[in-house]
Amino acid sequence: MRIVVTRQKIHGHPAAEFVDILRERLPDHEVVLADTPDAEREAIRDADVVTGEGFTTGSLLDEAASLKLFAGVYAGTGHLDLDAFEAAGVAVTNASGVHAPNISEYVVGALVSLARDFRRATRQQDRREWRAYQTRELYDSTVTVVGLGAIGTAVVERLDAFGVETLGVRHSPEKGGPVDEVFGYDDLHEALARTDHLVLACPLTDTTRGLIDREALRTLPPQASLVNIARGPVVDTDALVYALRWNHIRGAFLDVTDPEPLPEDHELWGFDDVHITPHNAGHTPQYFERVADILAGNVRRIADADGEELPELENRVV
Amino acid sequence: MRIVVTRQKIHGHPAAEFVDILRERLPDHEVVLADTPDAEREAIRDADVVTGEGFTTGSLLDEAASLKLFAGVYAGTGHLDLDAFEAAGVAVTNASGVHAPNISEYVVGALVSLARDFRRATRQQDRREWRAYQTRELYDSTVTVVGLGAIGTAVVERLDAFGVETLGVRHSPEKGGPVDEVFGYDDLHEALARTDHLVLACPLTDTTRGLIDREALRTLPPQASLVNIARGPVVDTDALVYALRWNHIRGAFLDVTDPEPLPEDHELWGFDDVHITPHNAGHTPQYFERVADILAGNVRRIADADGEELPELENRVV
Repeated sequence: MRIVVTRQKIHGHPAAEFVDILRERLPDHEVVLADTPDAEREAIRDADVVTGEGFTTGSLLDEAASLKLFAGVYAGTGHLDLDAFEAAGVAVTNASGVHAPNISEYVVGALVSLARDFRRATRQQDRREWRAYQTRELYDSTVTVVGLGAIGTAVVERLDAFGVETLGVRHSPEKGGPVDEVFGYDDLHEALARTDHLVLACPLTDTTRGLIDREALRTLPPQASLVNIARGPVVDTDALVYALRWNHIRGAFLDVTDPEPLPEDHELWGFDDVHITPHNAGHTPQYFERVADILAGNVRRIADADGEELPELENRVV
Repeated sequence: MRIVVTRQKIHGHPAAEFVDILRERLPDHEVVLADTPDAEREAIRDADVVTGEGFTTGSLLDEAASLKLFAGVYAGTGHLDLDAFEAAGVAVTNASGVHAPNISEYVVGALVSLARDFRRATRQQDRREWRAYQTRELYDSTVTVVGLGAIGTAVVERLDAFGVETLGVRHSPEKGGPVDEVFGYDDLHEALARTDHLVLACPLTDTTRGLIDREALRTLPPQASLVNIARGPVVDTDALVYALRWNHIRGAFLDVTDPEPLPEDHELWGFDDVHITPHNAGHTPQYFERVADILAGNVRRIADADGEELPELENRVV
């Protein structure tokens, strides 16, 4: 089979790296790097599989007569015209799940940084000031994880040895979960009232948009802090700024914001107890490896099906 | 029994807090706060137990006719005249082990901060700059823990779910340990050569003084980073500065330094990839609780022995 890797630099890594990783996994197939717009258009014409950030459908999809699969390298597929793929009979997969090991350790680091006030140490270090200060422990605190998908579950697993109580909030609380107690979104405030650390790891949906609003921030105890590795709009930014201004919560560790990127004059930048990372919690070299694992498995499945109907694929969304 | 709490402000918490915590645990005993030098001298005269940071032996020890136990609130007892206690027939206990839950989570936070370059995020935030950058994962890396006492063991336990390989270095490798592989100090370099993250959690002894010297830093791979929560002199500071200057290791997270406190004009303050906390990795409110647990247990044991010979005590060093 012919697999075309389109131009992309996911998380700061060059596409050629992704090509090498795919070739290692698929020695019996042809992996082609299309590194200009012309090369892309040309290569896609006789591709069996295309993998990349996006795909301009329309005429391109018509020309790709042998295309069986577009393998997106992001967890989300909101930027793709899924209907067009469906109409053309081309399967689409996403990279959902690849962030779990990656982002979950970021979250634990964020929780410890907040509890231990590492930021204060940095400020003191900038002044070359040796001055002990009190910190807090994660131990014996309550961590609430909103969203118990791959990332939320991985966070809870990593917290297992830290002696914390874990609460989970999910759409189907009857499913249970790896946490000490599970709540539905209707009972969010019950969980918030007991929370020392709130971790947002849910997808952005109608339910979760603006979930952490002024009311939610009012319910959170004043010692609580917030970690958002979900999507910016899960938090009402104005309500968050208000809560921080009046010391209604302790602090926040945000990999995502709303708006994003955060404008230079935004108040959030300036708070001492707000840590902002530029939506790069998932930017590690292992990202491509995990995406390649999914794709290689799917390519083998398609090859084994031998031109007949498409077999079951991992992470298929269309 | 009469338990005297001397003046102390361990880790920024007032002695009165320690008194409250002890009274809660020992309702059948008298817990007295001696809050001036005169009150101390007076109270110690008819104390059964004295607890505090230090104890000026000499005449004071002679006057304390009923004293059975001095319970130090630090893990170390190097500042105490242990021979004088021994001669006076007064037992001494330390607070060894109380730091394990506390410092071990600091270490995991330090490891993630280093891997994820949280420091860079802070620098960018100070400039209000939204710019993604690549980070690394702990996942699949090798963490070497020197010293497998309470703290080292607790670190390894907390890393269990992170998918890392763990190596341990200890005096008696034949004892094994919770790590994937154990080395003796003679084989230190075998472990260092495989290390991505080096965690120092050993006591300061003749063996460990200057353990991480220029040779050790030469053996460490260039991507390695160092976390020191042991004692400053376990690392040869000049050798560390040299290794950092020439990019021979990636970075360091230091709760202890040599000299300590670090003088204002010391080079270590200025490195972007060196994080310094002011020897406060153990400064959390739970510290007193854990020290009180040890002391309360020992007081009950002594009370139960009913004036006869001293029973076996937890954490006894004399």
